Amino acid sequence: MAGKDAVEQGDSRIATGIAGLDEAISGGYPRSSLIMLSGKCGTGRTTFGLQFLIEGAKKGENGVFVTLEKEPQEVMAHAMGYSWEAKKYFEKKMVSVVKPDMHRFDSFKKALEEEIYRAGAKRIVIDSFSLISAYFHEDPYDVRRSISDLARMVRRLDCTAVVIEDILEGSAYLSYTGYKEFVVEGVIVLDIVKKDASTFARTLYVRKMAGTNHSLKLIPFEISSDGITAYPDAEVF
Amino acid sequence: MAGKDAVEQGDSRIATGIAGLDEAISGGYPRSSLIMLSGKCGTGRTTFGLQFLIEGAKKGENGVFVTLEKEPQEVMAHAMGYSWEAKKYFEKKMVSVVKPDMHRFDSFKKALEEEIYRAGAKRIVIDSFSLISAYFHEDPYDVRRSISDLARMVRRLDCTAVVIEDILEGSAYLSYTGYKEFVVEGVIVLDIVKKDASTFARTLYVRKMAGTNHSLKLIPFEISSDGITAYPDAEVF
Amino acid sequence: MAGKDAVEQGDSRIATGIAGLDEAISGGYPRSSLIMLSGKCGTGRTTFGLQFLIEGAKKGENGVFVTLEKEPQEVMAHAMGYSWEAKKYFEKKMVSVVKPDMHRFDSFKKALEEEIYRAGAKRIVIDSFSLISAYFHEDPYDVRRSISDLARMVRRLDCTAVVIEDILEGSAYLSYTGYKEFVVEGVIVLDIVKKDASTFARTLYVRKMAGTNHSLKLIPFEISSDGITAYPDAEVF
Amino acid sequence: MAGKDAVEQGDSRIATGIAGLDEAISGGYPRSSLIMLSGKCGTGRTTFGLQFLIEGAKKGENGVFVTLEKEPQEVMAHAMGYSWEAKKYFEKKMVSVVKPDMHRFDSFKKALEEEIYRAGAKRIVIDSFSLISAYFHEDPYDVRRSISDLARMVRRLDCTAVVIEDILEGSAYLSYTGYKEFVVEGVIVLDIVKKDASTFARTLYVRKMAGTNHSLKLIPFEISSDGITAYPDAEVF
Amino acid sequence: MAGKDAVEQGDSRIATGIAGLDEAISGGYPRSSLIMLSGKCGTGRTTFGLQFLIEGAKKGENGVFVTLEKEPQEVMAHAMGYSWEAKKYFEKKMVSVVKPDMHRFDSFKKALEEEIYRAGAKRIVIDSFSLISAYFHEDPYDVRRSISDLARMVRRLDCTAVVIEDILEGSAYLSYTGYKEFVVEGVIVLDIVKKDASTFARTLYVRKMAGTNHSLKLIPFEISSDGITAYPDAEVF
Amino acid sequence: MAGKDAVEQGDSRIATGIAGLDEAISGGYPRSSLIMLSGKCGTGRTTFGLQFLIEGAKKGENGVFVTLEKEPQEVMAHAMGYSWEAKKYFEKKMVSVVKPDMHRFDSFKKALEEEIYRAGAKRIVIDSFSLISAYFHEDPYDVRRSISDLARMVRRLDCTAVVIEDILEGSAYLSYTGYKEFVVEGVIVLDIVKKDASTFARTLYVRKMAGTNHSLKLIPFEISSDGITAYPDAEVF
Repeated sequence: MAGKDAVEQGDSRIATGIAGLDEAISGGYPRSSLIMLSGKCGTGRTTFGLQFLIEGAKKGENGVFVTLEKEPQEVMAHAMGYSWEAKKYFEKKMVSVVKPDMHRFDSFKKALEEEIYRAGAKRIVIDSFSLISAYFHEDPYDVRRSISDLARMVRRLDCTAVVIEDILEGSAYLSYTGYKEFVVEGVIVLDIVKKDASTFARTLYVRKMAGTNHSLKLIPFEISSDGITAYPDAEVF
Repeated sequence: MAGKDAVEQGDSRIATGIAGLDEAISGGYPRSSLIMLSGKCGTGRTTFGLQFLIEGAKKGENGVFVTLEKEPQEVMAHAMGYSWEAKKYFEKKMVSVVKPDMHRFDSFKKALEEEIYRAGAKRIVIDSFSLISAYFHEDPYDVRRSISDLARMVRRLDCTAVVIEDILEGSAYLSYTGYKEFVVEGVIVLDIVKKDASTFARTLYVRKMAGTNHSLKLIPFEISSDGITAYPDAEVF
Repeated sequence: MAGKDAVEQGDSRIATGIAGLDEAISGGYPRSSLIMLSGKCGTGRTTFGLQFLIEGAKKGENGVFVTLEKEPQEVMAHAMGYSWEAKKYFEKKMVSVVKPDMHRFDSFKKALEEEIYRAGAKRIVIDSFSLISAYFHEDPYDVRRSISDLARMVRRLDCTAVVIEDILEGSAYLSYTGYKEFVVEGVIVLDIVKKDASTFARTLYVRKMAGTNHSLKLIPFEISSDGITAYPDAEVF
Repeated sequence: MAGKDAVEQGDSRIATGIAGLDEAISGGYPRSSLIMLSGKCGTGRTTFGLQFLIEGAKKGENGVFVTLEKEPQEVMAHAMGYSWEAKKYFEKKMVSVVKPDMHRFDSFKKALEEEIYRAGAKRIVIDSFSLISAYFHEDPYDVRRSISDLARMVRRLDCTAVVIEDILEGSAYLSYTGYKEFVVEGVIVLDIVKKDASTFARTLYVRKMAGTNHSLKLIPFEISSDGITAYPDAEVF
Repeated sequence: MAGKDAVEQGDSRIATGIAGLDEAISGGYPRSSLIMLSGKCGTGRTTFGLQFLIEGAKKGENGVFVTLEKEPQEVMAHAMGYSWEAKKYFEKKMVSVVKPDMHRFDSFKKALEEEIYRAGAKRIVIDSFSLISAYFHEDPYDVRRSISDLARMVRRLDCTAVVIEDILEGSAYLSYTGYKEFVVEGVIVLDIVKKDASTFARTLYVRKMAGTNHSLKLIPFEISSDGITAYPDAEVF
Repeated sequence: MAGKDAVEQGDSRIATGIAGLDEAISGGYPRSSLIMLSGKCGTGRTTFGLQFLIEGAKKGENGVFVTLEKEPQEVMAHAMGYSWEAKKYFEKKMVSVVKPDMHRFDSFKKALEEEIYRAGAKRIVIDSFSLISAYFHEDPYDVRRSISDLARMVRRLDCTAVVIEDILEGSAYLSYTGYKEFVVEGVIVLDIVKKDASTFARTLYVRKMAGTNHSLKLIPFEISSDGITAYPDAEVF
């Protein structure tokens, strides 16, 4: 089984599920870390996150998609729109989509932990992470501390988390308010950039990845019926 | 009847009514979704929205135009200024224009639902969506939740909604305050861009469209007595 | 009488009084609409507004200039500085200049309506519209509603209103606060733009005009002793 | 006497005292108006204002310099640093420098009126006008009304006022807060602009001048021991 | 022992641990000073700080890494990811990693002083300094005074401190809020800059260094398994 | 004695101590004035201020350096790092460094006056002036009045004051908040500007100098072991 091999080969790395991306970050995300996937609206972050879970399922690692805004059915329909045989993994409960209540941060964190146990999950996606801070906290210091808390929890549970974060159009920040990127262990930025006066290109950029010798190049990617494919050796312009 | 054919051919897609646009988004909007039509003042959004309803009427699908600022007569006069035979559809009550009271979001949503039932509508336009959030909410989290609520309602009613959103002149946002675009299922941006030092061109841009393999190109369009015509294969510059 | 002819020829259009502009907007403003004339300081808006009233007087349509800041005498002196024989029209009471008190928006609107009746006016200019919102409202929603109210009133009275709006220097907005332009039926922007490193040119730009097939070109204009003359076929640069 | 001639020649115009400027604005400022002299720090506005009063004194018109920040002695020393024989005019009391208390706007205005009477002044300079609004008002509407009040007062007293206004470095506004320029009858902007990477030039720009057919050109000027000399026919670049 | 030599050669300088940097700042940081290491997320500041402590350990100078957000184990794992034999120094307690509680600034400072005594430290790193001001102070004046206090403390204890400061993405400031850089004795800015349309380069810039004749050049650097290497004689572009 | 000569030659001018600068401003600062020395962090302002006092000491004029943030010993060490024989002047008490308490502005001003008397000072430097306004005032009007007060005090005491002001990185202002520059009698801006993509140059710019025919050129300068040397005839680029 291909998944088993991958785990054996590089236990400290976890495959991203994005063709072409693993090779740009030493084989995958650092296992048990919290990676922020930032981007403006329409940059493909949900697809990117789902692909991470499907990849896990293919490798025998269960995953949970935590949706805080869309309904689980919508998210599942989104996944099933691609050629991933997502339905199979949903049915086998290798990929679950849950929508927890948000009342207090502590109870949210507890619900998340229970869900991870219940699903035996090794991979989590939270969509969108912006809502957690918008809902629970206003103070930068508190937000930073909560993210550290979450990061510690996923490490303790030996889970790898990809958290989807909104960047406001026109903002230079790498997150909604500009300071979350300092706390997480990795930052990948998806973007839509102007190629010339009237065409745009999709790009991906590894801004930070703990303990990883990553390049700083803008990597073009495409979204097709197979999902996202990155071209680390191609040029955007 | 042409409308019936269209429905049969691609049940999951709903024709936009804009000549040239359907082909750029796999045949039309995803059925039962909420699409945000954003733009600065004078970019042609009301015409765009009306054309969506007239197209529906031509295909046998009833529609409702919800005006929150202008009087229904004004909106109808606007439609009748084009060569669409709009008067016929207004008289047949295939297109209705209503101006509901706005007191609380819940009662607004309820009134909207009743209107959809009453009219047997499959297509809705809300003009302008900016007013809903300006009037009911100040908190980004509440606004996001309300939009999700509306999106769920139109899905449940099997309606497709085009909501008109204001972008402030000079703003980089895709909506009035910059976060609505993260919640809706599609974003189309109408704009007036400088072609050279003293001429401007009208452009249309599909920024996001759930489950749709859309291009990221600036598409030029024109407004004539026939309404809006898009030229997906033409270049703006 | 020339005025009568014009009315007969195109009842739905009302001549702007600016040589060269009518032809760019299908013969004039849409009758009974509220047109916003926006611009930075010193761009010629008062002259533009007065010329609209003088044109009306020449055509037999009475007009009222509502000044909210300058004294009526100043405004009349301004008009009489041009070769328009303005004095004649002031004396015949075909053009009146009034300065109403501003206490509450409702009483202002009522005073305005009485003035329109009293003068038998078909044309109104309000200078400056920025003061109305600055004085009465702080909330965008209220301001938008007031403008809609005014627009309905002038429509009911079969009057055409040109309202002068301030754009702050360096602002990208088309009005003082950026949202009024969404509510009015037409927006004309007067500007002073840099032609080269040390010379500036006066330009005029029709941004929006309900039911009008207008161009989107920067139109150069000049101010001479005859007032404003626009050159729709000339280039600024 | 030269002054008398000037008055006879063009009663409606009042010489600015700046060599080269009068010819650019139809012979001088409109008599009895309030002209705003805006500029960033160090652009020569005080010199410009003093020169206006010295010119008046030479023509037999008394003037008052109202200083709100510097001491009268400083202002007089500043004037006497030029080759204007300012000392003579100070001694003859043809030019007075006063520093009134600022408590309430009304008492300030009254003190100003008394000073104008006492000095038989036809010319006033207020340095700086920014302080008046900073001290008395915070509300744009009140500031606009106060400026209108002042303008009416100087008109009633047949005085011409040059009011010195601060523009913050890097601001696009023509005054401190961006709306005063809409109320005054004339705006002259003094500036220091980059000529090339390491040299700067002094420029003057008539942005608005009621009833005056002025050019819109950046006019270079110099400050020498004779004060300010403008070169309306020279190019800055 | 190499360390000893270095101390003897230039007692007033303390080696930075970054190959290539010492030569750009007269042999190292001024001993007993507080140096701010500013940068956006992902610019290599933690590695830079750790390398400073490892260099000290190699020279026989003990050091303390004060982490305010990450867990000590994470920081140690980060260090051990490089070829520095960091584990040896952690075991010998030549480099300690501590995470003090933050309640009040005074108790934090006291805890820090005790830690320095306990560890016999000559080198300290605080990561991140942004949190200290975020947590304890809101007032610029208080923040400035606290930094002065800390600087005095490290001087008194004959310690050299490298404090890691966050710069928000897109900000021109050299610290989080823009005024800390005025108080510290040295500022080094790490950055990721665009080399061309799709590649980025890591740069280092000595903005200020008390009593040091430093260059003002952008110095390229790389991060490899040996940590950071600066190339003071190479060009970024 | 050289100092005496200088005083005799140009009593109204006071040498700046910066080689090359005096010639650019008619021989020195206007005596008894308050000059603002503005700049971003690391631009050499403290050195510039100290050099002014050392120059005075060489000419027999005592000076006081008022430090509000750093300790007097630090400031003295800074001065002694240059080839100025600063130690001699500190010992002879020709240059004193004091750090007064800041409680209220009035008591600060009084303490300053006493210090000037005690030291028989003709030259003062305040580092940094930004702290005075940050600490005592929030209101622009009050800050302006305090600066005027200080300026009057130094004039009365026949002292010349160089006050060091912070400019935030990226700010266009010539002071911390943008309005102080309007009140002082002179403004000199020290800066670090980009020469090309990766090198920076130190520049000096006389923005305003009361009663002085100064150039408006960017003047390059260097900091060496002899302190600051300006090159008024050299080009930055």
